[in-house]
Formats: sequence, structure tokens, C-alpha cells
Amino acid sequence: MKDETHPRPIHAVLFDTFGTVVDWRRGMINAIERWAAGRDIDVDWPAFVDRWRACEDPGKQAVRAGRTGWMTLEDIHRETLEPLLRSVGLGGMPAADRAWLLGAWAMGVPWPDSIPGLVSIRRRVPIASLSNGSMSQMLRLARAAGLPWDCVFSAELFREYKPAPGVYRGACRYLGVTPENVLLCAAHNYDLQGAKDQGLQTAFIPRPTEFGPRQTKDLGPEGEWSFVASDLIDLAQQLGPHLGERP
Amino acid sequence: MKDETHPRPIHAVLFDTFGTVVDWRRGMINAIERWAAGRDIDVDWPAFVDRWRACEDPGKQAVRAGRTGWMTLEDIHRETLEPLLRSVGLGGMPAADRAWLLGAWAMGVPWPDSIPGLVSIRRRVPIASLSNGSMSQMLRLARAAGLPWDCVFSAELFREYKPAPGVYRGACRYLGVTPENVLLCAAHNYDLQGAKDQGLQTAFIPRPTEFGPRQTKDLGPEGEWSFVASDLIDLAQQLGPHLGERP
Repeated sequence: MKDETHPRPIHAVLFDTFGTVVDWRRGMINAIERWAAGRDIDVDWPAFVDRWRACEDPGKQAVRAGRTGWMTLEDIHRETLEPLLRSVGLGGMPAADRAWLLGAWAMGVPWPDSIPGLVSIRRRVPIASLSNGSMSQMLRLARAAGLPWDCVFSAELFREYKPAPGVYRGACRYLGVTPENVLLCAAHNYDLQGAKDQGLQTAFIPRPTEFGPRQTKDLGPEGEWSFVASDLIDLAQQLGPHLGERP
Repeated sequence: MKDETHPRPIHAVLFDTFGTVVDWRRGMINAIERWAAGRDIDVDWPAFVDRWRACEDPGKQAVRAGRTGWMTLEDIHRETLEPLLRSVGLGGMPAADRAWLLGAWAMGVPWPDSIPGLVSIRRRVPIASLSNGSMSQMLRLARAAGLPWDCVFSAELFREYKPAPGVYRGACRYLGVTPENVLLCAAHNYDLQGAKDQGLQTAFIPRPTEFGPRQTKDLGPEGEWSFVASDLIDLAQQLGPHLGERP
């Protein structure tokens, strides 16, 4: 589906990463369950991961509201881990184990269409992450999952979180491409609205199980996005005629 | 040559890029000479490129001294181009041609050892650029030259130029690795001193023709660097036992 009011050439594509490109939740749960099985720890890890993820929004909100100085997403994950562990009877876990759990945020697995779609788009234009994750989380994730980025961008570079305008504008500036010739692809409508507000083109793809089997939000497009695709392979096909390196 | 006072494991390697990884001067001159031949423009392009490069240091110095706000290296190249063109009788060149010339900074060619050396090191640890070039110059260069970076870092992210401490420290922070476990590789002694002063490990490789056949500086190591290698393939071999992803 192409919105014909947006026939502008696309010189670069940015991708939200957690959820859009990788199944962070399934990857984390699988990795942690394997790790815990060797340690005889009995916890409902899917519920634990969901509760940990739910700590992100209050943390980001505290940064936005100026109630705390800048904290990366990894800082937020680190700070919220110990109280969560205590709540399931695992307080006082050795530091090395806590560090391992923190690292599980970079153990997401690509959705089946992600790598083929990214490789296809990258043949034509530069591709980069644009995530609220920390730079080091994005770097470890990219290596572990084999994400073929030309460049890694994250909120940490701009010290503010999406959908703040500076994140989208900053990424375009670093790409050296005007926003109207940059596309953001995401599985989250709020993120696409943030990008559209700064003049970027937008592409929605659904990831209806990102948050597990009972996900209720972002099941479909909720705005006038430039493209709506079923997955990244479909997106690559739709984008084909519009992609070209900047002159 | 391994300095045995620095037996610390290396979890990530940063590379200066212009000169160290790519022969920017030869790549630019060849590209511009081909371009000019089709236009019947007769200029001593090697001399022109050398004079353009010589504009960088005053520009960076103006930024450092606060005589101007932040300017990327591409801003400096753009601002100094028109006076240089006028000086060789090419004032008033069309904007598209000036833009093409500006883009020639991203037309450097990898030294013959660069790609094999980078690929080898990247198999073991993350690798990234750490250049004074602008982000978009680094991105276009990486795509054109096939540089297999995990991530692109440049002075533009920190709004100051190497050897300012914040550039080295900032790159380590984004990598999520303590400086003592990061190595900077460069063909320039001033850059290695800047990195060493911030606690990074250092590797010198000579690029004795970076500035042309009459180069007089950086012909050899001028400090106590952790490693001295003949090229990036030799460096990859020397680093082998020391490389490992962070725990």
C-alpha cells in the first residue's frame, strides 16, 4: 500500500529494532530459561520479562520529565533488575549473574523475514537502526543476530527518547539526507507518528506477537503511513521503485 | 611488537579511517581526474587536493578555539572549496559540480591490506571507525569502499575533534567497554597519544604515502604504543591472542 501523496525518492531507511526487527521477548525468554535450567532456579520467566519490560516506560518518562538525568535504556534495565529479582525471591544474586541477565536484552532473535528484507534494502540504500536501546545493547544485538546495519543509531546519541523530534532529525542529519528522503520502518504507531511529524516517510509492519500471545496494541496501522507491509520482505518489494542512493 | 606492560584483553577495536584504512588522497585524485577529463578542465589536481586537505587544520582549530560554532569536517570542506576553486580559475562552478567535488572525500580506496585485516579482526570483536570526518562522509565512504564496520563513530557525535579526550571516551562509552579494553589503531602518532592519554590501548601502522610521495611525518612510531604493525593484516595476527568479546 503506497500513499500516493508521498512519491519522494528514499535515500536511506531507518529501522526501529526491538520488536520491529528482532523478537526480543522470545529471544530473552528462551535464553534465560536455558540459563536458569542449569541453575535450578524456578521462576515464571515470561512474566518476569514482561514485568521488566514494563519498567521501561516509567524510566523513560522520568528522563523526559527531568526527574532524573539522562539514563540509557540499559541503565533503566540495570536499575530495575534488583527489585524485580527480590520480588521473585532471587534478591542478592551474584553480580556476574545479574550482568548476564542484563545482557539478555541483546539476545533477541530476528523475525524470519528480517535478515532477507534488510539485506535486500541495503543493496540499494544505507540502512541503520534507530532504537531507544543503548548503543552497546544495539551493537551486541547486531553482532549476535547478524543484523547487517550500515550504521547503528540510538536514542543514546541524542540523549532523548523517541518520539522526541531530535532523535529523528538527528539521525537524518548524520545520514546527510533530508527527512523527506528518509523512511522509518516500525511496528509501533507512536514511533511512526513521531517520524512523520518530522517529515520522514513511514512504513508500518505488524508484529502481533512481540508482546506475547495476548498483545492488544499495534495490531494494525493507526495513521496515514507512507507504506504498510506484511513484513520486511514485503516492504523491500514495495520500496523497490522508490529506493536510490542520494545523488 | 607487543608492549608487555599492556597485556589486557581487547574487547573492541577502533580505527582512524582517513589514511589509516583508506588512501583518501589517491582515491580522490583518481576520481577527480577522471571527472575533470570529461569536462576539459585542466588543473593540477594533486596540488589542489593537498591544498584542500591543508584547510582542515585551520578549520578544526577555529572550532577548538571557539572562534566558530561546531562545524563538521564536511562543513569545513564545503566552506573552503569555493575560494580554492577561484584560486585556480574555476570560480562560479555550478552547485552540482561543487557537490560532486565535496563527495570526493568519500571516494577513498582501501589500502590492499585493509579489508582482509578488518574482516579478520571483526570475526573476534566489534570494530568501528573513529574518524574526524563527518558521519555522512564516513557512511558513504564505508559503503563505497566496503568497510565492514559494526558501527560508525565520528567526531561529529561528540562535537569535538580528536585528540580531544571526549571523542575517545565517548566511543568507549557507546561500545560499553572500559577504555583499557579498547584498542585504537591509527597511522598518526598524535591520535594514538590522544587515545593513550584516555587509557586506551594503541596500535600504529605506517602509511608513508598517505600524503603523497614526499610525506615527512608519521613515517614511524613516535611513542610507546601497545602494538606496532606493518599493516592491518600484520596487526590482526599480532592481536589474535588478545582479542575476545567482552564477558
